[in-house]
Amino acid sequence: MKPVKIGLCGLGTVGGGTFNVLRENAVEIAARAQAPLEISLVGARRDNPLCDLSTTRVTRDIFDVARDEDVDIVVELIGGTTVARELVETAIRNGKHIVTANKALIAEHGNEIFALAAEHGVAVRYEAAVAGGIPIIKALREGLAGNRIEWLAGIINGTGNFILSEMREHGREFSDVLAEAQALGYAEADPTFDVEGIDAAHKLVILASLAFGIPLQFESVYTEGITRLTPQDMDYAEELGYRVKHLGVAKQSDAGVELRVHPTLIPKERLLANVNGVKNAVLVEGSAVGPTLYYGAGAGAAPTASAVVADLVDLARDISAEQENRVPSLSVTDDALRDLPIVPMADVVTPWYLRIEAEDKPGVLSKVATILSDLGISIEAIIQKAPPPGATRVPVIVLTSHAAQGKVDEAVARMEALDSISSSISRIRVEELDG
Amino acid sequence: MKPVKIGLCGLGTVGGGTFNVLRENAVEIAARAQAPLEISLVGARRDNPLCDLSTTRVTRDIFDVARDEDVDIVVELIGGTTVARELVETAIRNGKHIVTANKALIAEHGNEIFALAAEHGVAVRYEAAVAGGIPIIKALREGLAGNRIEWLAGIINGTGNFILSEMREHGREFSDVLAEAQALGYAEADPTFDVEGIDAAHKLVILASLAFGIPLQFESVYTEGITRLTPQDMDYAEELGYRVKHLGVAKQSDAGVELRVHPTLIPKERLLANVNGVKNAVLVEGSAVGPTLYYGAGAGAAPTASAVVADLVDLARDISAEQENRVPSLSVTDDALRDLPIVPMADVVTPWYLRIEAEDKPGVLSKVATILSDLGISIEAIIQKAPPPGATRVPVIVLTSHAAQGKVDEAVARMEALDSISSSISRIRVEELDG
Repeated sequence: MKPVKIGLCGLGTVGGGTFNVLRENAVEIAARAQAPLEISLVGARRDNPLCDLSTTRVTRDIFDVARDEDVDIVVELIGGTTVARELVETAIRNGKHIVTANKALIAEHGNEIFALAAEHGVAVRYEAAVAGGIPIIKALREGLAGNRIEWLAGIINGTGNFILSEMREHGREFSDVLAEAQALGYAEADPTFDVEGIDAAHKLVILASLAFGIPLQFESVYTEGITRLTPQDMDYAEELGYRVKHLGVAKQSDAGVELRVHPTLIPKERLLANVNGVKNAVLVEGSAVGPTLYYGAGAGAAPTASAVVADLVDLARDISAEQENRVPSLSVTDDALRDLPIVPMADVVTPWYLRIEAEDKPGVLSKVATILSDLGISIEAIIQKAPPPGATRVPVIVLTSHAAQGKVDEAVARMEALDSISSSISRIRVEELDG
Repeated sequence: MKPVKIGLCGLGTVGGGTFNVLRENAVEIAARAQAPLEISLVGARRDNPLCDLSTTRVTRDIFDVARDEDVDIVVELIGGTTVARELVETAIRNGKHIVTANKALIAEHGNEIFALAAEHGVAVRYEAAVAGGIPIIKALREGLAGNRIEWLAGIINGTGNFILSEMREHGREFSDVLAEAQALGYAEADPTFDVEGIDAAHKLVILASLAFGIPLQFESVYTEGITRLTPQDMDYAEELGYRVKHLGVAKQSDAGVELRVHPTLIPKERLLANVNGVKNAVLVEGSAVGPTLYYGAGAGAAPTASAVVADLVDLARDISAEQENRVPSLSVTDDALRDLPIVPMADVVTPWYLRIEAEDKPGVLSKVATILSDLGISIEAIIQKAPPPGATRVPVIVLTSHAAQGKVDEAVARMEALDSISSSISRIRVEELDG
């Protein structure tokens, strides 16, 4: 059988991992793809000592790969959104299929890239862009094709989840665990993309577009990071029966689509609440199947390579079958994409956790309760304990029922205006995740 | 776009569910399949009141469906292994693709059916045969195609899992919960297939064949049911840090392949240990990706229909692309299947939980410890408590380290031969599920 020729761009962590997985599992992969997957050309600025390149063509100019005659599929693993975009578009114009792990590229420029690919009759695959080795893209695009997806919620950034797990398990402060995460290599020197939720937002927008059949719209995602969470919030959440996770949430309703990344209280008994460390997991509610969960390694050389190779095998099967564009990039063709409105955050309805640091004076609780009641916000639970000796402030924890964020914004503003409440109120959304 | 014509055989729970999912989600499904999926003909002994058949051709002879000119794909949802086999083979000989939910049919006759399908150039799909709506077949066949699968372990029978969840949560006896399960419709009047693990074994053999590229071999699966478990075993397991689940386990090693269904102690902190009620979950360890878990509804009309439709969309995409046999039924072609030996149960190595009812006499513990030590079986943990007043017997709980079953068989035989141990010893295998 005619080998399928791979052009590998980038030989960093993921590139090196992909190279090695293709080599180590060559026999199984060839049996599944029904054709050998041959690394025809590698484009990389420098060699990777973990890769044996002795029998491989290597070029220092990755654009060579995009134009090489002996390449069927270009694998883009260089990252970033400028050179990577040019590379991918050049490859598409040269009739190459694309496999990428680049969430930022797809989230921010996917619409244009998919349109170009459709025009040239080639496929763009990106399983590796979201949740590492977990085949979630395939599940949404194919495995759940019989469902209307009602919503999905995911732990899709391992760095953030590692930090929150450590904070909860050991009562450590955010900045302390962040420093450790950086030392361990779980977080970059500039950790903004992870802890502010930008990385998760890139991934969420890809999942949502597949799930709901809408164009990619990264700029529409509400993004809130985890830097203001405290171990005390974790403890109160636990007492109320919840855990705090950094979730990407996408929902569709008659009002439109919600796209949001933020800290979230979720019930302790959910499987999602028990996903710890750097693992990822995505919970998807389908109209026929109900809730389904997909869990595994969200990052790392070999897990991400696993996803890249899954896409390569899929494409190889298509190429062998001489059908090279079998599944549209976003599961449906461009003309079937829907222009659904994005629900403004003020209209998003969830329960809320509020932590109010109040002066230990009579009447504070009653004022808080009145403010909430005036705005039609019901209280699910309250925790107020006697303050430690000598403390002048006492934390009051409120769990509200479902309320529109706009109402909660107003309630918090009114509470913060009270004399007896002198610092800003901590707020975390709640998701029950029960269908 | 030319519609893809479906011939639906069986209008029971799953058939009715499939009919309705195809109708309700027709627009989304057509957008994904890139062609409408049209129910061209229904074969059913009687109508289903939940299905509006007013605009559908219906026949009382399902073999009409297998031969009808206006059918591209035959969906077999009648169950059983005799008529269903004949139906499927007739359809294949008439050039129809097959989608089925029939685990027994695939497990017991899959090799012949797949060979016939390959001969006739048609596809056989069976996502719905294992774990309901969870796209596990697709994950193994495609999503994890870059991995060597080291092992998998699954809760793949919802009835059994419901029973064990109730036993653990409420301390109820097996027979009591079984009666309730039957009343609730979670278990058949003859519950043997569920509680003895036969249903799980059918499903396990399918997963293992996909995972390891081996022929289906249902008769090689070791099957042990849950009828002898007691709530006391659940309590002791909990005390040792474990939960008891009815698992299907498939592993490959240098010695060959292990295929076994049996009660298993698994660590409490595993996600799998927290899957309760009628839900299913499969944990798969891939050589590149590491552990991945897939969770959701394992049965029911709509969840199973979700899986049937996923296969239909896949096939429709193939048919639209004019490539009708893109992915081999077992992920690899027949000639790439491997004839791996099945490891005999005596050679299977796991830790063991033993519950020994011993006379409350001095020296029993020492005898037990000596027997184990003589056979080279290490002890991980022991629980022995003071017996309640008036009791003459005291339970001794032993958790061994890894030991070959043959050794443990011998140890148990020697213990049961002691005077001070007058009843049979309860034994449950342990799986750490940590890679």
